[in-house]
Amino acid sequence: MEITTQLQVDQVQIEDALRTYAAKWPAYGVLKDAMSYSLLSGGKRIRPVLVLEICKLFGGTAEDALPFACGLEMVHTYSLIHDDLPCMDDDDFRRGKPTNHKVFGQANAVLAGDALLTTAFAVLAEASLPAERVQRGIAALANAAGPNGMVGGQVLDLLGEGNSLQEEEILAIESLKTGCMIEAAARLGAIAAGSTPEEEAAAAAYARKLGLAFQVRDDILDVMGDEGEFGKPIGSDQANQKSTFVALKGIAACEAWVQELTQEAVAFLAPFSGREFLCELAHFLARRTK
Amino acid sequence: MEITTQLQVDQVQIEDALRTYAAKWPAYGVLKDAMSYSLLSGGKRIRPVLVLEICKLFGGTAEDALPFACGLEMVHTYSLIHDDLPCMDDDDFRRGKPTNHKVFGQANAVLAGDALLTTAFAVLAEASLPAERVQRGIAALANAAGPNGMVGGQVLDLLGEGNSLQEEEILAIESLKTGCMIEAAARLGAIAAGSTPEEEAAAAAYARKLGLAFQVRDDILDVMGDEGEFGKPIGSDQANQKSTFVALKGIAACEAWVQELTQEAVAFLAPFSGREFLCELAHFLARRTK
Repeated sequence: MEITTQLQVDQVQIEDALRTYAAKWPAYGVLKDAMSYSLLSGGKRIRPVLVLEICKLFGGTAEDALPFACGLEMVHTYSLIHDDLPCMDDDDFRRGKPTNHKVFGQANAVLAGDALLTTAFAVLAEASLPAERVQRGIAALANAAGPNGMVGGQVLDLLGEGNSLQEEEILAIESLKTGCMIEAAARLGAIAAGSTPEEEAAAAAYARKLGLAFQVRDDILDVMGDEGEFGKPIGSDQANQKSTFVALKGIAACEAWVQELTQEAVAFLAPFSGREFLCELAHFLARRTK
Repeated sequence: MEITTQLQVDQVQIEDALRTYAAKWPAYGVLKDAMSYSLLSGGKRIRPVLVLEICKLFGGTAEDALPFACGLEMVHTYSLIHDDLPCMDDDDFRRGKPTNHKVFGQANAVLAGDALLTTAFAVLAEASLPAERVQRGIAALANAAGPNGMVGGQVLDLLGEGNSLQEEEILAIESLKTGCMIEAAARLGAIAAGSTPEEEAAAAAYARKLGLAFQVRDDILDVMGDEGEFGKPIGSDQANQKSTFVALKGIAACEAWVQELTQEAVAFLAPFSGREFLCELAHFLARRTK
């Protein structure tokens, strides 16, 4: 099957599952609408796709992995809503649409984010998997998303604005802010499948390299991309005075680095049969234009 | 043992455990300070005390219950930080101290809240209890704190500001906003102890009545209390145009109602030996002045 075809199959399955969860949310004020607006606004769904595909790599089914995949995507979505708030990055557009607080107001945007984050853990806790796997999955997600992971990265990112950061500092921020959650996606897939610790470690190593390649590619597209295709304004990093890998190393070095990281990512999957999709996915993301 | 002595023993154990968790948080920017500022700012710790005492009622130990108790208190604390934000209730003081965003700024206050909410689930997931109990505990907490519980209540509370609400509407808001989390405290204690479904249901029923009595008493203190003792400005509900039980029914009727709810609460514990502390706690809270 073509990479884009399998990707679409996964994406459809994820969208259906997310819509099923959203349909059950209560309609207090605009809460359900505000949660659904951001959760069901498309996006590449790379993180939940990784959960599904890593789970399948280690002998599980997509159905086993879906609650973990959907919970992770809810956490990712909450982080985008809160990051866009006026007191944070103050962004008006996300994926070509007005940001959550522009549509629903700040109070509802904060609460929609809070509700998505909280609901994510209910979704994981109610997965039909052995309790040990559920417990491990929740620990992996909470640790990746919390102060030692994504939230810590956002704090450092805000602190770094307007300063010229060194490569190690940008690496530390990106690793916390986006890397931890992409690694968590791989771990959640492995945990859902009941994989061995060695398998989980290999999947996590693949995801760490893939996540960094993804972020470097994002920095490149922020300079070189097509605004309509990319979904956010070109040059926004510079406008927001964010230090990026591109500003530090230049486009050509970053393009070579993305290729190198992608090779390193797929190398971690060499021991496993059935790895073709995940290897192609890494190459596909390395050349993406949106 | 005197009720206040046992209460202090529990509170000390909870404070120690919270401080131990906080000591391990990473020092990215002011994140650890902002999280600790609100989490370790005192308060009555009624919710975690309930977790410990209900667990002991059903044959568990305080140590069994501590991770659940601390996680629940972290969720409660995050909700106070976000509720106080300028886009929500816009409060400058909480427990006699400046609110989180007044000290650390809005961005850090949002992120400290996010981090506390996320960390709570890591704390529960890492509890040394059978995996089934951990899974049930996380589901109970996430459902109580999410859109069907606390967050839903806050949405309705903001919507209701400036309107004259009926008793049923105030009841619905309070039940979601504060009742669900007090009920969750009782459920978490029962789950940590490995109680039967009947025991968990009785504990939940006790907590629902106690939680409502607590809220009505809060409304009374908001009108009749001593500002220094109560820790927040007297008359703030009226100033914020919040509909309260006191505004609707009057002080005398509310005082009688608190007594009635307290009697109903303790009646649910009648089948269980070792219920003395929890019965006294209900009466103690009914006559509290802060």
